[in-house]
Amino acid sequence: MNFCSDNVSGIHPRILDALIAGNDGDVMPYGADPHTRRAEARFREVFEREVAVAMMATGTASNALALGLVASPISAIFCRSGAHLQDNEAGASVMYTNGARIIGIDARNGLIDPGDLDRALANFEPTRMLCKPAVVSVTQASEFGTVYSHQHLGEISAICRRHGLRMHMDGARFANALAHLECQPAEMSWRAGIDVLSFGATKNGAMAAEAVLVFDPTLAEGLRARLKRGGLMFSKHRFLGIQFNAYLANGLWLDLARTANARAAELADGLARAGTEFLYPVEANELFVRLPENTLSSLEAQGFQFYRRGAGVIRLVAGWNTKPADVASFVDSACKAV
Amino acid sequence: MNFCSDNVSGIHPRILDALIAGNDGDVMPYGADPHTRRAEARFREVFEREVAVAMMATGTASNALALGLVASPISAIFCRSGAHLQDNEAGASVMYTNGARIIGIDARNGLIDPGDLDRALANFEPTRMLCKPAVVSVTQASEFGTVYSHQHLGEISAICRRHGLRMHMDGARFANALAHLECQPAEMSWRAGIDVLSFGATKNGAMAAEAVLVFDPTLAEGLRARLKRGGLMFSKHRFLGIQFNAYLANGLWLDLARTANARAAELADGLARAGTEFLYPVEANELFVRLPENTLSSLEAQGFQFYRRGAGVIRLVAGWNTKPADVASFVDSACKAV
Amino acid sequence: MNFCSDNVSGIHPRILDALIAGNDGDVMPYGADPHTRRAEARFREVFEREVAVAMMATGTASNALALGLVASPISAIFCRSGAHLQDNEAGASVMYTNGARIIGIDARNGLIDPGDLDRALANFEPTRMLCKPAVVSVTQASEFGTVYSHQHLGEISAICRRHGLRMHMDGARFANALAHLECQPAEMSWRAGIDVLSFGATKNGAMAAEAVLVFDPTLAEGLRARLKRGGLMFSKHRFLGIQFNAYLANGLWLDLARTANARAAELADGLARAGTEFLYPVEANELFVRLPENTLSSLEAQGFQFYRRGAGVIRLVAGWNTKPADVASFVDSACKAV
Amino acid sequence: MNFCSDNVSGIHPRILDALIAGNDGDVMPYGADPHTRRAEARFREVFEREVAVAMMATGTASNALALGLVASPISAIFCRSGAHLQDNEAGASVMYTNGARIIGIDARNGLIDPGDLDRALANFEPTRMLCKPAVVSVTQASEFGTVYSHQHLGEISAICRRHGLRMHMDGARFANALAHLECQPAEMSWRAGIDVLSFGATKNGAMAAEAVLVFDPTLAEGLRARLKRGGLMFSKHRFLGIQFNAYLANGLWLDLARTANARAAELADGLARAGTEFLYPVEANELFVRLPENTLSSLEAQGFQFYRRGAGVIRLVAGWNTKPADVASFVDSACKAV
Repeated sequence: MNFCSDNVSGIHPRILDALIAGNDGDVMPYGADPHTRRAEARFREVFEREVAVAMMATGTASNALALGLVASPISAIFCRSGAHLQDNEAGASVMYTNGARIIGIDARNGLIDPGDLDRALANFEPTRMLCKPAVVSVTQASEFGTVYSHQHLGEISAICRRHGLRMHMDGARFANALAHLECQPAEMSWRAGIDVLSFGATKNGAMAAEAVLVFDPTLAEGLRARLKRGGLMFSKHRFLGIQFNAYLANGLWLDLARTANARAAELADGLARAGTEFLYPVEANELFVRLPENTLSSLEAQGFQFYRRGAGVIRLVAGWNTKPADVASFVDSACKAV
Repeated sequence: MNFCSDNVSGIHPRILDALIAGNDGDVMPYGADPHTRRAEARFREVFEREVAVAMMATGTASNALALGLVASPISAIFCRSGAHLQDNEAGASVMYTNGARIIGIDARNGLIDPGDLDRALANFEPTRMLCKPAVVSVTQASEFGTVYSHQHLGEISAICRRHGLRMHMDGARFANALAHLECQPAEMSWRAGIDVLSFGATKNGAMAAEAVLVFDPTLAEGLRARLKRGGLMFSKHRFLGIQFNAYLANGLWLDLARTANARAAELADGLARAGTEFLYPVEANELFVRLPENTLSSLEAQGFQFYRRGAGVIRLVAGWNTKPADVASFVDSACKAV
Repeated sequence: MNFCSDNVSGIHPRILDALIAGNDGDVMPYGADPHTRRAEARFREVFEREVAVAMMATGTASNALALGLVASPISAIFCRSGAHLQDNEAGASVMYTNGARIIGIDARNGLIDPGDLDRALANFEPTRMLCKPAVVSVTQASEFGTVYSHQHLGEISAICRRHGLRMHMDGARFANALAHLECQPAEMSWRAGIDVLSFGATKNGAMAAEAVLVFDPTLAEGLRARLKRGGLMFSKHRFLGIQFNAYLANGLWLDLARTANARAAELADGLARAGTEFLYPVEANELFVRLPENTLSSLEAQGFQFYRRGAGVIRLVAGWNTKPADVASFVDSACKAV
Repeated sequence: MNFCSDNVSGIHPRILDALIAGNDGDVMPYGADPHTRRAEARFREVFEREVAVAMMATGTASNALALGLVASPISAIFCRSGAHLQDNEAGASVMYTNGARIIGIDARNGLIDPGDLDRALANFEPTRMLCKPAVVSVTQASEFGTVYSHQHLGEISAICRRHGLRMHMDGARFANALAHLECQPAEMSWRAGIDVLSFGATKNGAMAAEAVLVFDPTLAEGLRARLKRGGLMFSKHRFLGIQFNAYLANGLWLDLARTANARAAELADGLARAGTEFLYPVEANELFVRLPENTLSSLEAQGFQFYRRGAGVIRLVAGWNTKPADVASFVDSACKAV
């Protein structure tokens, strides 16, 4: 039973079926196919507006490409200190922005505090630093499984507008956050001030499908050239379009996210009953909990898989395919092992 | 009937079946899965040696990443003038080498002439140009459907060694060239002096699967970091491993390439009988032919698809899935329309 | 007697005197000194308008920095094929634009022909090339000692505007061209459609002083950060300001350019009388002439220095300090040696 | 009386005289002149070994270029947290390394603690961070006016060798550190394990003269191309050579550094007598002291210039030209104003 990450899972059957069905016949490459057009149309429907879309295989690429649209070598990008794009993407955003400076802000529960951001921007001296704040990147849901509320996003957005900054959302787990907030995609993105969104599907049931959604058309110029230049553009592009079509059709993506969130909530409930310490509120599909070392060893010995995050702390992630029985089994074993 | 490119095709059934079969269950991400390990082992078998492998979705990325291992911002890369990496990849190789200079050499039949290369290198003035020749990139099969012979590769390799240059092969159609030469992969790559190979599977039956194969281990340091930095590393990495496993198993890849080459040869035979002018020898799966404008219009009107390449010239590409009947139909229509 | 280049000369006495005079006392660094402010004011006077100025030591840097303001990694820069910025600056413009593509247009007498440019732009396929024409760079005076007339610049400017391109001038020898055209600096720059100018003083009497002049204020954002980022910003910035002050004061710069041009004209007259073949019209301070090999050897043996440019062709450059007697001596020796 | 920085000063008379003397006559450009050759010879003498030298105008460029020789886009550079190259050079080192990651280590008195460095390297996870520690950069004298002792450098060097890292020294104030340690240049550089040195002369009496000294010849390949590519190479290169010749001749550079250090020591003595709090030991030519706000205002009102560094803290820098009387006057005023 693998709780390491939501990317240990495979492809959801409906997406796989769509890949099989869409495989027949010849279609034009590089996005000039009906699947891609349909996926673009779906994005317009789902987000209730025109939107420029670039599809690719990885979340690292989508963050880097998105930031490359809003940041230059003399820009500063603000994010949570230790955000995925700062610490876990091998400098992809530095590469795709040709050297933008990434400035981390200490966060609370994985979320940027508006007051902290405002202070950081107010205290920032472009003349001394010789770079100019250009964009704030928020991760929704955060790397710690927490979710920005509407009000929270609104406050950050207001700060961005006041300081003349763009706003980017790393939505590798956009669906999980949306399922938690129970709102419309538009509300959690462009209506909340997001200019560019990295929209993930891979963790939530796709094979390898991430999209950059550009809500401000003035930012989208050169999007296609940048996609190609990064080596990100599929020649058999239909297979990206097909994944997104199936993912977005009939609310599959939200069903899967709700399922993953529900499993995480069950894990949290079970562990809470045993008095487990939680490092952050459990709002999406990730938990960070502290357990005694002998409990952890015992769980590992029983074949449960999870990542350790420092002494006694582990991360547990529920995916779209996590089974209730596995959750029950983990909780049971954890309680017994304490 | 689409003769535009070999990337208009879908996934070969055996590769698709492998994706379906490998989809079950959870596996660790980022390459720590058994499918990836098996694919790496297969590459060792197929190439009869140790080899560092990086797998990704696109050929543009594999060329750029490969060249990034052997060229720096003050390097010159020599290739055929107008090679895919120079003209059709949006500067990806410039991006991944951080600014290497790409110098095109006029080619004959799409192939670099050893004499021309030797002269270009002998006449190159690093002091005046302020960059240093670092690597020669050959495309095998070439963008014009021609194939470097062993002797040809050997002569270029000898020149590279004499001038202290590395040798890269853009093998987007490696299989088609191999099928033409009827030799072992090792012979056409590292035994022929290739240091880094971009090994393509996408055009020849995979969905999106390209690999950088590094034969000189001193060049492979940082390969993984560069892969991640470019945003190229799949999180659900198994789906790259699975494609390569199925592609390389039981000689599928060679069967598919032989099929495509055979279809191209049938096209060539048929058109030759009608007295068609060929711009290049037909050795792999591409043809460039000159036909009267009214023939071309008539073919297009009948639904045949192909790319035009200047006045009266078209490119025809046969894929792994091109049907003999379609070839016959094209030849028939072309002959009638003349 | 050295006719290799105008950069073999030293500093003009009036500029040197200014450096000596301005050396006394402490002033604030990084441009916050009165000399720099005065130089900026002089640029405004000389060019009859507001202008953002960045001062630095080298012409390569000024071209690269200027192009970095108007071109991005997905831009194409058009220039004369073999222009200094394309062939002789070690890829600085690629570095400072983070990878813009430099596209050379075959030139006539070192000058871009408007018709050729228009055709190149009309035939350019951004979709296929995956980069977008962003700027045309003209070198005034050209590397071959020829000068764009007002009408010529106007035609190129009209083409730029029609295609939505910016216009850059490499003015390493701006003064020599201006002296030839006998017009106002504004006429030959922003009134002629130039958005960004690399304004050289080094070759024409300064020690090391080049400026980027940005006429469109929307392009100047981040100019200072880019200057620092390139490692180009002097800490003791006064010494750049002082050079430009003395250079621009009382028309010194034009006097020096007129002198150099006059010496070149004398060289041309003398050599013409001897029936020498000229490769280009002599309009500024450079000559390209064909002479018999034994003449060249003889001249070299007598201690005349010049650069050879292929079989029998040499370049002769007159500087602000070239003496009439040296010119006479060269002409005399050349005529005798024939 | 300006204590803001050592770059508020002008050129030392002997260096200025040398510029005047060297100005006569024509010499070949781009370093092919006798002054440059003589300066290179002097570097060999002063450092008692062969050394590859690149000369340029700014310290930012010399740091960035030097690091570009030892770090790649997938490298990590370790320095003091907040070091000049990290915070004050507009990302030049990121630009010239094409994206190396700069990792700051909290320092004690402006100096990297060997234990901290060792722990940082031991705890560094290249696999997780996806970059590889490549170089440690030490600033000698540090930005806080402190100096690494021989033993201190030796300990850091040992750590570098143990971890396979290169060692860079930002020697913008190399002379001031050397004057403090009273040792040979070789001892404080390559014999102490430094592979690449940024050797500054500007702050200590030159106009604009900084050099990258490469002690390991395998690192020097492409040095000249990189210099040109950055736009750093003077065409009238003699004026860099002349500055270094005069600077290094007859121990001028050490005399000037001793003078500046002596003035700083006098400032320190005087302020210490008045009970002033020092933030760091005064070892070179900089002081950081805490003074009451009304004292600071009073000093400013009297025309003393210095930089404030947070509440009540100021930096005072003595230069080669700081007069004892000015020091006495400052101390006097500071004591009276308290």
